[in-house]
Amino acid sequence: MTENNAVLIGRKPVMNYVLACITLFHSGVEEVNVKARGRAISRAVDAVEVVRRRFLPDVKVKNINIGTQKLAPFEEGGTPTNVSTIEITLTR
Amino acid sequence: MTENNAVLIGRKPVMNYVLACITLFHSGVEEVNVKARGRAISRAVDAVEVVRRRFLPDVKVKNINIGTQKLAPFEEGGTPTNVSTIEITLTR
Repeated sequence: MTENNAVLIGRKPVMNYVLACITLFHSGVEEVNVKARGRAISRAVDAVEVVRRRFLPDVKVKNINIGTQKLAPFEEGGTPTNVSTIEITLTR
Repeated sequence: MTENNAVLIGRKPVMNYVLACITLFHSGVEEVNVKARGRAISRAVDAVEVVRRRFLPDVKVKNINIGTQKLAPFEEGGTPTNVSTIEITLTR
């Protein structure tokens, strides 16, 4: 699967990401990868739930992965921060 | 599995829930169920990551489920709200 099928969840309203997922599926891809980190994780789950409950009932959650990403410290000599990540693979 | 092994994630600091998970595993259970809804979902992922990366490296994520819960409307005649849920099953 190429990275072209990834939807990165940020701070925009949930519906923007829902639309991105639907557009990808309508363009003919079989799998869409929804990725988020930190506090956007709950928004990622929201987007996935709206996609499959309201718009595309044939879409299934194939896999969910969680992990940790190390971020570079804010300032010189600071400690690196850890941020949680999620990756939800949708398929139909 | 009984519901005694569930850790419900709320608004407290992440470490409270990390400690709850560790205590359950130390009491001898094989599986711990971490549950959250709405914006606490990202905190659930944080807690799970801290447990398995910092404290109990032998703990694995066995399963992750996401879903939607319908909440009763705030006021009489209002529309019900949907809230996303997550359930992360840890095992060792």
